[in-house]
Amino acid sequence: MSGNTLGTLFTVTTFGESHGPAIGCVIDGCPPGLDLSEADIQPELDRRRPGTSRHVTQRQESDTVEILSGVYQGKTTGTPIALLIRNEDQRSKDYGNIAETFRPGHADYTYWHKYGIRDPRGGGRSSARLTAPVVGAAAIAKKWLQQQYGTVFKGCMSQLGEIDIPFQSWDLVAGNPFFAANADVIPQLEAYMDKLRKDGDSCGARIEVVAQNVPVGLGEPIYDKLDAEIAYAMMGINAVKGVEIGAGFKSVAQKGTEHGDELTPDGFRSNNAGGVLGGISTGQDITVSIAIKPTSSIRTPRQSIDKAGQPATVETFGRHDPCVGIRATPIAEAMLALVLMDHALRHRAQCGDVRVATPAIAANRR
Amino acid sequence: MSGNTLGTLFTVTTFGESHGPAIGCVIDGCPPGLDLSEADIQPELDRRRPGTSRHVTQRQESDTVEILSGVYQGKTTGTPIALLIRNEDQRSKDYGNIAETFRPGHADYTYWHKYGIRDPRGGGRSSARLTAPVVGAAAIAKKWLQQQYGTVFKGCMSQLGEIDIPFQSWDLVAGNPFFAANADVIPQLEAYMDKLRKDGDSCGARIEVVAQNVPVGLGEPIYDKLDAEIAYAMMGINAVKGVEIGAGFKSVAQKGTEHGDELTPDGFRSNNAGGVLGGISTGQDITVSIAIKPTSSIRTPRQSIDKAGQPATVETFGRHDPCVGIRATPIAEAMLALVLMDHALRHRAQCGDVRVATPAIAANRR
Amino acid sequence: MSGNTLGTLFTVTTFGESHGPAIGCVIDGCPPGLDLSEADIQPELDRRRPGTSRHVTQRQESDTVEILSGVYQGKTTGTPIALLIRNEDQRSKDYGNIAETFRPGHADYTYWHKYGIRDPRGGGRSSARLTAPVVGAAAIAKKWLQQQYGTVFKGCMSQLGEIDIPFQSWDLVAGNPFFAANADVIPQLEAYMDKLRKDGDSCGARIEVVAQNVPVGLGEPIYDKLDAEIAYAMMGINAVKGVEIGAGFKSVAQKGTEHGDELTPDGFRSNNAGGVLGGISTGQDITVSIAIKPTSSIRTPRQSIDKAGQPATVETFGRHDPCVGIRATPIAEAMLALVLMDHALRHRAQCGDVRVATPAIAANRR
Amino acid sequence: MSGNTLGTLFTVTTFGESHGPAIGCVIDGCPPGLDLSEADIQPELDRRRPGTSRHVTQRQESDTVEILSGVYQGKTTGTPIALLIRNEDQRSKDYGNIAETFRPGHADYTYWHKYGIRDPRGGGRSSARLTAPVVGAAAIAKKWLQQQYGTVFKGCMSQLGEIDIPFQSWDLVAGNPFFAANADVIPQLEAYMDKLRKDGDSCGARIEVVAQNVPVGLGEPIYDKLDAEIAYAMMGINAVKGVEIGAGFKSVAQKGTEHGDELTPDGFRSNNAGGVLGGISTGQDITVSIAIKPTSSIRTPRQSIDKAGQPATVETFGRHDPCVGIRATPIAEAMLALVLMDHALRHRAQCGDVRVATPAIAANRR
Repeated sequence: MSGNTLGTLFTVTTFGESHGPAIGCVIDGCPPGLDLSEADIQPELDRRRPGTSRHVTQRQESDTVEILSGVYQGKTTGTPIALLIRNEDQRSKDYGNIAETFRPGHADYTYWHKYGIRDPRGGGRSSARLTAPVVGAAAIAKKWLQQQYGTVFKGCMSQLGEIDIPFQSWDLVAGNPFFAANADVIPQLEAYMDKLRKDGDSCGARIEVVAQNVPVGLGEPIYDKLDAEIAYAMMGINAVKGVEIGAGFKSVAQKGTEHGDELTPDGFRSNNAGGVLGGISTGQDITVSIAIKPTSSIRTPRQSIDKAGQPATVETFGRHDPCVGIRATPIAEAMLALVLMDHALRHRAQCGDVRVATPAIAANRR
Repeated sequence: MSGNTLGTLFTVTTFGESHGPAIGCVIDGCPPGLDLSEADIQPELDRRRPGTSRHVTQRQESDTVEILSGVYQGKTTGTPIALLIRNEDQRSKDYGNIAETFRPGHADYTYWHKYGIRDPRGGGRSSARLTAPVVGAAAIAKKWLQQQYGTVFKGCMSQLGEIDIPFQSWDLVAGNPFFAANADVIPQLEAYMDKLRKDGDSCGARIEVVAQNVPVGLGEPIYDKLDAEIAYAMMGINAVKGVEIGAGFKSVAQKGTEHGDELTPDGFRSNNAGGVLGGISTGQDITVSIAIKPTSSIRTPRQSIDKAGQPATVETFGRHDPCVGIRATPIAEAMLALVLMDHALRHRAQCGDVRVATPAIAANRR
Repeated sequence: MSGNTLGTLFTVTTFGESHGPAIGCVIDGCPPGLDLSEADIQPELDRRRPGTSRHVTQRQESDTVEILSGVYQGKTTGTPIALLIRNEDQRSKDYGNIAETFRPGHADYTYWHKYGIRDPRGGGRSSARLTAPVVGAAAIAKKWLQQQYGTVFKGCMSQLGEIDIPFQSWDLVAGNPFFAANADVIPQLEAYMDKLRKDGDSCGARIEVVAQNVPVGLGEPIYDKLDAEIAYAMMGINAVKGVEIGAGFKSVAQKGTEHGDELTPDGFRSNNAGGVLGGISTGQDITVSIAIKPTSSIRTPRQSIDKAGQPATVETFGRHDPCVGIRATPIAEAMLALVLMDHALRHRAQCGDVRVATPAIAANRR
Repeated sequence: MSGNTLGTLFTVTTFGESHGPAIGCVIDGCPPGLDLSEADIQPELDRRRPGTSRHVTQRQESDTVEILSGVYQGKTTGTPIALLIRNEDQRSKDYGNIAETFRPGHADYTYWHKYGIRDPRGGGRSSARLTAPVVGAAAIAKKWLQQQYGTVFKGCMSQLGEIDIPFQSWDLVAGNPFFAANADVIPQLEAYMDKLRKDGDSCGARIEVVAQNVPVGLGEPIYDKLDAEIAYAMMGINAVKGVEIGAGFKSVAQKGTEHGDELTPDGFRSNNAGGVLGGISTGQDITVSIAIKPTSSIRTPRQSIDKAGQPATVETFGRHDPCVGIRATPIAEAMLALVLMDHALRHRAQCGDVRVATPAIAANRR
């Protein structure tokens, strides 16, 4: 059973490869009557688009989205919404030299052994380019959630390689190419990236995403818990190696007297839970942190093998992000939005309308 | 859509509450012809059973499993396998005082608001007792995977509260009540737990699980990636707040020249990937690490509210694990086994039999 | 992927074999807050129970149902509801002689070849006994639908072998062992059945089921149409070979001017559609007709082969229904109720509460 | 949960509306390594294309298909295959007059009440035009099934309105616009259709489809039986009101001594089962018959209501098939192929490769 669909009630089925004619998705289950046009989707696509600074891949893609179905006279009709994005800048020659070898850290080895065939052009299906349709679909989810519950999504980079990025303000995120919620550290980040590129190396990143104004009650325990589904969605983003909810790994060394968030008539006193208890949203901010590994494609030669099992040296000369984490913030937001959208519909199915639309007060919201 | 089923092709649907008449599950999709009796399942249940040391809850449950269907003359028939475990030691009075208030850190608040009703006896459906049927089902998966591919599962506690537990040998795990792969640190762990209990407090833990001899090719990108599904399964275990695959959060500060595992004709040189590339198993060990929060039920009084929203103080006098992480190792192994089992069948559906049954050599296997 | 689950949001996963220790099911997705006890379920089970007249199998089963989970203080909690029915009258010896041969018309041949193993005792998993848990689960769906929308389900036998059974009144159905909506034809039916038994033969039947007071809007085109799902559910009942909605096969010879149901401000003028247009309920009665083949187990010797492919003669001496259609009416009602329940929740997920709860007037309701 | 996906392992998710910019689908789960290009798909699309005779709608659509993904160097890669068909002849003005009224027999009334909005242009999503992507997807399934097992699909019209069409030979089907397996009755059918058109009326049809060389063992009882899934797929085709497998409704009046197909070492002696026993394929021909209602769009004025509930008269002047059954044969074949494809993969998941690839001999194959 191939796993190219996200969600169970608000489903997003994507298609396409990095260097094929087009990428896109079919969204099934969108509630009818939502005002929708390409103008609602394009801005989110533009946030993750390549080529917008010297610190990301220089591939030129306008990522122009076309809605093929599911909208009539500017409103969703409840039928599937198909989004189409034509690929424009597929320089297949860049990848010709890697068709016969397996690049370390990449999916080449595993796709080859699983399917017995692989599309080597730009990573084919395993390329991070495939996050574009997801971001497009999530724009629809974000709009509906905001209209329905006032839910909003925020994200930022909190660590780049060894450099911590202290949180200052959400307002700062859009003002730099790193999605940093900080104004002071930007020169340091730029210098760090410039050196990495010169060294032919790459680095990892940590991204934080938050959902605010989430209704109480979303999540379907005891397996499709909200945090379990978030972990699934986040770990499914290219290059993610770790996921935390709330206090995350810090909770290991916490005592019960510290970790368990006390309640008062005015709301919770803390948010170690990250907005989820027993797999169900509490109404507090949902806080998620993810680890993104360093880009596998680097100019430094690396040891590998070819299809015949013989030793080979791999150097990558194509266009790549030296830190894939730089463009990951809007993608992580998108995944979180899709999970909440799906669970909003799932909740409605079994329990009817949300009972507690006003979220509990989160004492420590930043 | 209620989420009480694990898996898509090897499905486990559980039922039951902590203090109801019984718990159990229905397993659908088990391949026919597997030798199976209760004797294959009971030992795994016994590993996670309560009451086996002074460091865990003193609830007395034999957790005796009965196979109700799906087996004929000692072999699976391909039809659903139902497992039944009767609850024996439900002292509902222990929980009478908490029916009206929401215990901090527990699912009381969220179940109440989601469903408009909740079973307060021992946490009802949200109790960790519900991991028993999962462990039972996973015993079947483990047996099949071992017969088919030689796959084995190992797990240990690597941190208890602030105490790191260095890995010495898998052989040591069964010799102490903590599932520690270490013989020297046990007295320290025991003293730590004794003090916690005296203080009326609790602590968290970190658990590591490993799958060895995994065939190459399991995982269904680009969403149902093997690591995404593992993250879902792990985060769905009660009290888990973080999940890492391979290098996990350490990969943030790694360089690309360090992280990407090089290949040689003899196999991979390292395993930062944790056995998964592009969402598909590489044949190396699959390595997973999870963070478990401190038990929410503690004897120290805590502030909360009641159903009417009025302030209330909560003290817990029932029987509880002061560190739920102590019994989490077999549960985490079980979850990993169920994910691999499911993906073994999913692989077979689309791609036929596994192409590379002999796993790549993992240079750094411990 | 094994197919032992009915429904997508109100899911019923059954387990058990005809002569195993127990049969039952797990129902996931039931809305919380519904009053429920065994007393709501047992009467429906009693309607399909064997041994209630001389015209059905003489197997003695009380079919006593136990609710194992999902109910607290007499109300559903939104968690899985497990139903357990112990088998009481499994005379395995009756079936010993058929373990090596394939009975014509039965699933013996196909189960053997599919799974490489089969439980021959009473047909194992393929026995019509497995309709009991479905009827139990449907009792819950019926109760919820009636409370929510006033929906009610009715069914009757309309043909027994060559004998047509004209519809007189729904009130007559409970007054005879055939579920006939007719009082006059009963002696003829009894004589027909008595002769069949004496001849060691069996016959088919036609069953009609109707749902009344169905809200407008249920059904999820363009594949999970309400009528498509009904056809799936009905054809899945043991021995069913045909399904019609509304005018059914009569519509082939109808003209468009006759078939298309005209609308007036007071409702539809006719119901050739059978209450479904474009896969969505119209609010009219949903009318379904099914064909049930003659029982395959008969005392007359028949030609077959054994597992080795050698010729063999099969005679059946066990206890069997000479017309499985006689007990099919409550089963068909149950299937229809489960489909509507599932679609009521599915509708709620995407579209919110039903917009037109008052059904359109059905001019030709009987 | 919206139902725009067919299948569980070989999934086809369609999108598009009759008069939108495009229609298409995403196929997920196709086995890798299959030779595939548009040339494999286009011929099947051409078989159901409109405008090919005077007896069907005169809408001009080339139905040219473009493969957007999932194929590399002429072979499937195991990743999603997206098919795109641009709509070319959308004369929206034809339908302007029906936006405010509900056409009898159409989905207008139900879509409006379900979603609160509907795309009235050519029936929007409910148009039979949406069968085109299904036929395209099925071309892939047919190719794989034929290569893997030799399975082939055949279909014909067996009744047009009141006119029976005796079966003569499969070879005759392609030689007339009705898909009749008969050469003699064609003039009569043409005259019948010409009169219907002149009268502004429409008629129904009966279609038969057959799958030959089906492996033994396909089907997932006890709910996802092969025949149950076929019934679902067939009843989901626009305008279908009845489905039969094998003897179908004739089995009601059959005796057990007649209906149950006896076995010999050379195969089955008859095929009342229609190739399915206990929900699993027997290896005999799978035989299916469906009833298609008369086209709802006719030129004869009909009574209806408008959105405000006021009386209205509806006349249809657009381009329509006077018998939608005429183009239904390739669609029904496609649905059957998709069901078998899906179950071939499902079988492989649980049971591994098919055990009995050589089908049992069907004594009465025509």
